[in-house]
Amino acid sequence: MSVRTLRIGLCGLGTVGQGVWKHLTADRPELEARLGVKLELARGAVRNPKKRRSVRIPASKLTTDALAIARDPSIDIVCELVGGTDLAREITLEALRRGKVVVSANKALICAHGAEIFATAREHGGRFLFEASVAGGIPIIKALREGLVANRFPLIYGILNGTCNYILTQMEERDAPYTQVLGDAKRLGYAEADESLDVEGWDAAHKASVLAYLAHGVWVRPEQMIVEGIARITPADFKNANALGFGIKLLAVIWRDFETNELSVRVHPTLLPESHVVAKVNGVFNAISVQGDVVGTTLYIGRGAGQDATASAVISDIVDAVALLRRQKGEMIDGDFIETTARRQAPPRIAPPEHIEGRYYLRLTVEDKPGVLSAIAAVTARQHVSIASVIQSPAERAGAASLVLTTHRSNERALRNTIARLRRLRPVLEEPVLLRIAEFPE
Amino acid sequence: MSVRTLRIGLCGLGTVGQGVWKHLTADRPELEARLGVKLELARGAVRNPKKRRSVRIPASKLTTDALAIARDPSIDIVCELVGGTDLAREITLEALRRGKVVVSANKALICAHGAEIFATAREHGGRFLFEASVAGGIPIIKALREGLVANRFPLIYGILNGTCNYILTQMEERDAPYTQVLGDAKRLGYAEADESLDVEGWDAAHKASVLAYLAHGVWVRPEQMIVEGIARITPADFKNANALGFGIKLLAVIWRDFETNELSVRVHPTLLPESHVVAKVNGVFNAISVQGDVVGTTLYIGRGAGQDATASAVISDIVDAVALLRRQKGEMIDGDFIETTARRQAPPRIAPPEHIEGRYYLRLTVEDKPGVLSAIAAVTARQHVSIASVIQSPAERAGAASLVLTTHRSNERALRNTIARLRRLRPVLEEPVLLRIAEFPE
Repeated sequence: MSVRTLRIGLCGLGTVGQGVWKHLTADRPELEARLGVKLELARGAVRNPKKRRSVRIPASKLTTDALAIARDPSIDIVCELVGGTDLAREITLEALRRGKVVVSANKALICAHGAEIFATAREHGGRFLFEASVAGGIPIIKALREGLVANRFPLIYGILNGTCNYILTQMEERDAPYTQVLGDAKRLGYAEADESLDVEGWDAAHKASVLAYLAHGVWVRPEQMIVEGIARITPADFKNANALGFGIKLLAVIWRDFETNELSVRVHPTLLPESHVVAKVNGVFNAISVQGDVVGTTLYIGRGAGQDATASAVISDIVDAVALLRRQKGEMIDGDFIETTARRQAPPRIAPPEHIEGRYYLRLTVEDKPGVLSAIAAVTARQHVSIASVIQSPAERAGAASLVLTTHRSNERALRNTIARLRRLRPVLEEPVLLRIAEFPE
Repeated sequence: MSVRTLRIGLCGLGTVGQGVWKHLTADRPELEARLGVKLELARGAVRNPKKRRSVRIPASKLTTDALAIARDPSIDIVCELVGGTDLAREITLEALRRGKVVVSANKALICAHGAEIFATAREHGGRFLFEASVAGGIPIIKALREGLVANRFPLIYGILNGTCNYILTQMEERDAPYTQVLGDAKRLGYAEADESLDVEGWDAAHKASVLAYLAHGVWVRPEQMIVEGIARITPADFKNANALGFGIKLLAVIWRDFETNELSVRVHPTLLPESHVVAKVNGVFNAISVQGDVVGTTLYIGRGAGQDATASAVISDIVDAVALLRRQKGEMIDGDFIETTARRQAPPRIAPPEHIEGRYYLRLTVEDKPGVLSAIAAVTARQHVSIASVIQSPAERAGAASLVLTTHRSNERALRNTIARLRRLRPVLEEPVLLRIAEFPE
């Protein structure tokens, strides 16, 4: 019996690509024995073939033309690891049109072009696998698609950005301001030179979009979400949160009401009870809590990024790709192309702000004079936002006070209106800082 | 194109069986659409067909002969949910010999007869799936086999028994003695009438055996493990542990040294740093920490048992079974039958006690008189066990004192010898209580 050889092409040999090359080279004999095929790391596309890399790759295998790999009829599995959404999209579509399996770690690509990608795969019998795109070291895609196949998902939330979690953890542990910790994170390689994608919440929003599609079958773009970053959080916020029994995490929240069929996807700094397990997930780790209607709450924790964690996920997709490729074309079924586990009910609508309820933490820097709290309380009362607690303390700014309000249950629209009106109050000196208070089950 | 019908037989319609019947009935249209087959809940085996059940099952589908389902040529997938190891073994082997897929939640069966079961599956082209056997609600088998396929596993540990975790949590929160909490747990249905399998650690040992085989390819029987239960833990132990900065969890630990190729599998109450995420996993929840050599540490948390969590796992195996059955016999590969992810290196040896190192917590009830500590310290010194801290407090018993020692790094043999000698010291009034102190990475 002749053994089939499956040829793998790597488009992009940056940090993740080199990790895949390294670990796949080391694992090949094991994987071949287990899978009953030969695996060949056939080609790699790079921008600069002369660049020094941590893995030795024969020059004959390198090309600068990533699309040539996508189009090469001898390549069965294309790993798209170039990043960005332009060339990555072209590589992906070219490969899928030829019925190849594409393995991707690119959440921005999926978020921007997922609908086109999955339609192309379905039309041409290609497959698109993306375990590495969300929380690299955590096999969350497989858990949602396969392990929890018996479930619908009313709530998925978690820490999806390791850079932000590292910064928040350091700010709390060292009682240090955001800019200082960010600088250190950059020096240590935990934050990119341009940190905006991470700290403004967009990276987490891309990942939330992928998870929301997987769980609910609709594409929610970051522009349709509440996306708030961590840059305005101060050491004082940690002190206030701790005093109230909370920690602060940047959470992505995917919430579906199956009664009203509304969906909300959002990313924002969140006060989590200190006793909550997710509040204990520190540093670069990611955590995803999945509430299934059958299984109850499950929680997954691991490294979200980095060469090895991401390579581990890419290799698990390559192994799944082999199983798919060993089947005959005629044997494919509808389910093979379903990249969402959503039930075939009407797709959910995006929940309007007034249906997104919760409790809130509001920090105001105000003039330190009598009557200010009364003026503020009048504004919140008019918006039917009920105050649960007030902490007043000196602000960093001279002559100013810091007012921290927590609210009883309210909603996003009421809070938005409240803040718009507070901004116009003369004694309010700075843009208010709004954080959400989590009301999740353990 | 005709759609194939796959027929499912449920052997055992207890709590889990009824859960599977209920959820599979509800999910069937969705699963059929996704999988491209018809699924028929064809037959159910019960001891008493007249018994009232929470699901309505036509009498015509019920039989008292579970083996008849295993032998029925029209049944494709057999769910073995009868429990125990005798009839369960017969059902499993009969079905596998006929090339069927067997889905099982039975860790005791796998632990006792796994080698025979997997060999039978391989010989006859049957398949054996067992996601529900360990930590029901957590897709840990799939994570180890598929999601983390690129990894070897130097360390797997966790809370594998929800009953024990519930009891320990209650003891700590309510400052209540073991027997009282156990009684409450029985009344509330969190503990079996005969609690011994759970509280003595055997249930966790069965699950550890399954995980160890999956990760390392060797069967370690509970008799070959250190297995210690929770019955001798007292509220004082929680107070002492808290004073030292620890919580107490019953942990299963699967540790492999790839240098020496030694393996140790054990179950024992363990002091975990209070800041450790696993220390925060309370009540009936399970938690499994998996350290992969590529991915680093990942952690999985969810309900370990109960009708719905276990049914969720059984259904995910049924879905995997459908994918396997859609392939042709000739298409099977070696890897299909590999129930272990272990690499093809020489199987590990069981580590001898002197190679199992760690720190220890030792509580002694001693006569309250001068010179006792000195006598005890002389014993530990002779065994080269170095004391890290001592807490002395009045014991419950009149005229006695409680001595809590923690040790620096030592090993199981030295501690065993120490305890054997301490037992013989006249001032030592009761059997010493030995707990391990975890030295795991976060």
